[in-house]
Amino acid sequence: MTRIDLNSDLGESFGRYTIGNDDQVLDLITAANVACGFHAGDPDVMAQTVALAETKGVAIGAHPGFPDLGGFGRRKLDMTPAEVKNMVTYQVSALMGFTKDHRLHHVKPHGALYNAAAKDLALARAICEGVAQVDDQLPLYGLAGSQLLEAAKEVGLPAYSEVFADRGYQADGSLVPRSQPNAVLTDPLAVAERALSMVQTQSVTAVTGETVPLKVDTICVHGDNQAALALVDQLRQTFTANGITIQAC
Amino acid sequence: MTRIDLNSDLGESFGRYTIGNDDQVLDLITAANVACGFHAGDPDVMAQTVALAETKGVAIGAHPGFPDLGGFGRRKLDMTPAEVKNMVTYQVSALMGFTKDHRLHHVKPHGALYNAAAKDLALARAICEGVAQVDDQLPLYGLAGSQLLEAAKEVGLPAYSEVFADRGYQADGSLVPRSQPNAVLTDPLAVAERALSMVQTQSVTAVTGETVPLKVDTICVHGDNQAALALVDQLRQTFTANGITIQAC
Amino acid sequence: MTRIDLNSDLGESFGRYTIGNDDQVLDLITAANVACGFHAGDPDVMAQTVALAETKGVAIGAHPGFPDLGGFGRRKLDMTPAEVKNMVTYQVSALMGFTKDHRLHHVKPHGALYNAAAKDLALARAICEGVAQVDDQLPLYGLAGSQLLEAAKEVGLPAYSEVFADRGYQADGSLVPRSQPNAVLTDPLAVAERALSMVQTQSVTAVTGETVPLKVDTICVHGDNQAALALVDQLRQTFTANGITIQAC
Amino acid sequence: MTRIDLNSDLGESFGRYTIGNDDQVLDLITAANVACGFHAGDPDVMAQTVALAETKGVAIGAHPGFPDLGGFGRRKLDMTPAEVKNMVTYQVSALMGFTKDHRLHHVKPHGALYNAAAKDLALARAICEGVAQVDDQLPLYGLAGSQLLEAAKEVGLPAYSEVFADRGYQADGSLVPRSQPNAVLTDPLAVAERALSMVQTQSVTAVTGETVPLKVDTICVHGDNQAALALVDQLRQTFTANGITIQAC
Repeated sequence: MTRIDLNSDLGESFGRYTIGNDDQVLDLITAANVACGFHAGDPDVMAQTVALAETKGVAIGAHPGFPDLGGFGRRKLDMTPAEVKNMVTYQVSALMGFTKDHRLHHVKPHGALYNAAAKDLALARAICEGVAQVDDQLPLYGLAGSQLLEAAKEVGLPAYSEVFADRGYQADGSLVPRSQPNAVLTDPLAVAERALSMVQTQSVTAVTGETVPLKVDTICVHGDNQAALALVDQLRQTFTANGITIQAC
Repeated sequence: MTRIDLNSDLGESFGRYTIGNDDQVLDLITAANVACGFHAGDPDVMAQTVALAETKGVAIGAHPGFPDLGGFGRRKLDMTPAEVKNMVTYQVSALMGFTKDHRLHHVKPHGALYNAAAKDLALARAICEGVAQVDDQLPLYGLAGSQLLEAAKEVGLPAYSEVFADRGYQADGSLVPRSQPNAVLTDPLAVAERALSMVQTQSVTAVTGETVPLKVDTICVHGDNQAALALVDQLRQTFTANGITIQAC
Repeated sequence: MTRIDLNSDLGESFGRYTIGNDDQVLDLITAANVACGFHAGDPDVMAQTVALAETKGVAIGAHPGFPDLGGFGRRKLDMTPAEVKNMVTYQVSALMGFTKDHRLHHVKPHGALYNAAAKDLALARAICEGVAQVDDQLPLYGLAGSQLLEAAKEVGLPAYSEVFADRGYQADGSLVPRSQPNAVLTDPLAVAERALSMVQTQSVTAVTGETVPLKVDTICVHGDNQAALALVDQLRQTFTANGITIQAC
Repeated sequence: MTRIDLNSDLGESFGRYTIGNDDQVLDLITAANVACGFHAGDPDVMAQTVALAETKGVAIGAHPGFPDLGGFGRRKLDMTPAEVKNMVTYQVSALMGFTKDHRLHHVKPHGALYNAAAKDLALARAICEGVAQVDDQLPLYGLAGSQLLEAAKEVGLPAYSEVFADRGYQADGSLVPRSQPNAVLTDPLAVAERALSMVQTQSVTAVTGETVPLKVDTICVHGDNQAALALVDQLRQTFTANGITIQAC
């Protein structure tokens, strides 16, 4: 039986600032990446988001990022691997305290940290060591083919391979930069068909035509607006209609 | 056999800013209150402080404070009990992740949070609930006679009663404000004799002459300068010479 | 000729977090209180807000608050008057740099700082001294009857008296707390008639029936939602229909 | 008559955290680069540092850095030029408010911002535009031969060329990285002789023997410890003995 996990970034509000439709998104996904207070989120938002995810039976993961609320964690900060390790331990452990059973389902780095961890093995290893300090069985979510997945293997952590159903891929398995054509797909049906194919064939067709093998454990989805929510809804319908079970990794 | 615990605030450095003589103090105390990154400390300092305390066999406690690095946690911030609860969960849980066995020995609120928790039962209860969310067996350290000890009882957490050997007491068991005469004692021998008497009689003589009963589980000591370190050293000698065992609660 | 100023808090977005309808509100008001990066706002938001206000000919004021982004400046922080003075200098001066002519029209403290300055003369004086350090002719906006207006007089700064058209007043000139009945009026027409009466009579009728004299220089309005915008629109219509000129102090 | 300026980074304390010997250093230098609260410093420290520099007749410059107190501004943060521009305006303008005459003598970027501005023209231009927004006659201090000096010229700001008397230079005019041999010179007399030669010949001998022309307007000195202070003292003696006037640019 084939299965797929749908994950989404949540708990990104801060104080009086509200972002996202967490309540609606949590009805559609199987795994939540919850911000930990460095790039977004705060202790109150974390408590509420964890409680909501627990109520809805969604797997809870930590979503650590650079200490840059002003940049929403999307700007790289030149930290040493030792600093990254401790920063990850801090954020992952902080979130864990809010859960009922003091366990997390996974860790997925956020934004610039996620992107840097895809290419920089030393940084990726530091992230994994930071996670292992908290729980040496806690799985990582990383970009398919990334150094983060490699680092998890080295450090001895489980890892799941993440793909983006609405993004164009290059022949080397990397995403087409947003500045280029075919970077983002928007038609819900097309995206859903593509996602189905990715799951069934464990591969993707690059924008240049090549078939690129890709381990597909989990798909990242968004819920920022009604279009995004509609797309997730379409994904669910297509998967279900084709006998793919939607459940957390 | 009578015993006493000596605790001290540690891990208060931040980034390139260094405060305290943690390495020396850890040789003299039995319990460390480690800052958690809100009023002082950062993930790197926390990792180093925890590792050092573990090496030296000192019991590790969390030392949560208000989110006010600029004021070193000594300025009260008007947070709601719900906000305080989540803030405490966050900080305590974050520190826990750095320990080898993912356990803490105690929690002692810092500065303005400690002082507020001595008098405000709702705030004190929020602190205890924040701690219980992380570990419902984790003991609190609170001022002898404070609302924090009362709240711990209500919430079902163990609690230890803290005294200050170098501070004057008023007839109601509260400390003489620093703005008044006899607020602080500085002679090491006099402080040590006073501490011994507090432990042996579980009471203190107020500045106005009354005998004030006081539960004495742990004594707060400082290590900011050589005089402070000398005082702790004298305390240890006096206790040992009088058959008092120095060990964590 | 009678005139009235309509002021509103603006520039409260932060990074990727957006709050308010600044563009719409700026078409309706005569004076903008721009957040300065401590309780809300950031350098980019400040630059954009100042530019927009300049384009629309709206007078620009600084809106300093406590250093508490997480609480949006609505929680009191126990700072000393000396700390408040320097904090205000910093924020007011920072905003001034973004204006074309390096001048500001006024300063209005935000949230908990505004409320504390209404009752605490020492704090209010510190605010005024912080403003005077930047520009000793820069006017303060303060609650009618507040200590802030008193402090401005003492420090030698101009000051304007602010009223709230949609809030109930008590016999002593203070606002009815939001926790009590009649604290907030919501009917646009009723609020507009009340505002007109306040301007024409320089007084307000308290919830207990007394006529309370009140200097009415400026009215605080909000633009958070369509209802709020509609209310400001109604205010403008009523004032214009009654020969009151709407312009900055 | 030949002259030289001695500048130093000051006002880097924060809250209860103290760094540097500002009081002593200010007796030896002619220009102070004062931290502006983003990478170091706070409003109270800024007020005190400015007052002290004014008392001692030392020229006051702004020392803006990345918003990274935890990294002391020594870690690069990937900000856009537009973000850098506004961040610089904010910090420079904030500091200006603390001076008696609301004027600054210069601006010198700090740490990672300084280093990035040496090589990245777009970033350097953004810094200059941020300065020009506050005062279009305000001079920049930049590394000799850097893009920052080039950008200042483009933007129309005065600029002064800074050298390091205690650092080895490479044939292209850049500093020998600290990881390599001959990166740092420590003998006070040798450093002083070298500084004198730099001023007199407006050039430096590279570690590989070449003579590298170098505009020498100002020399950066440090005062972190007694050795650093002794070195500045020696510099002053050597300059004075050789008829070089020590005064701000």
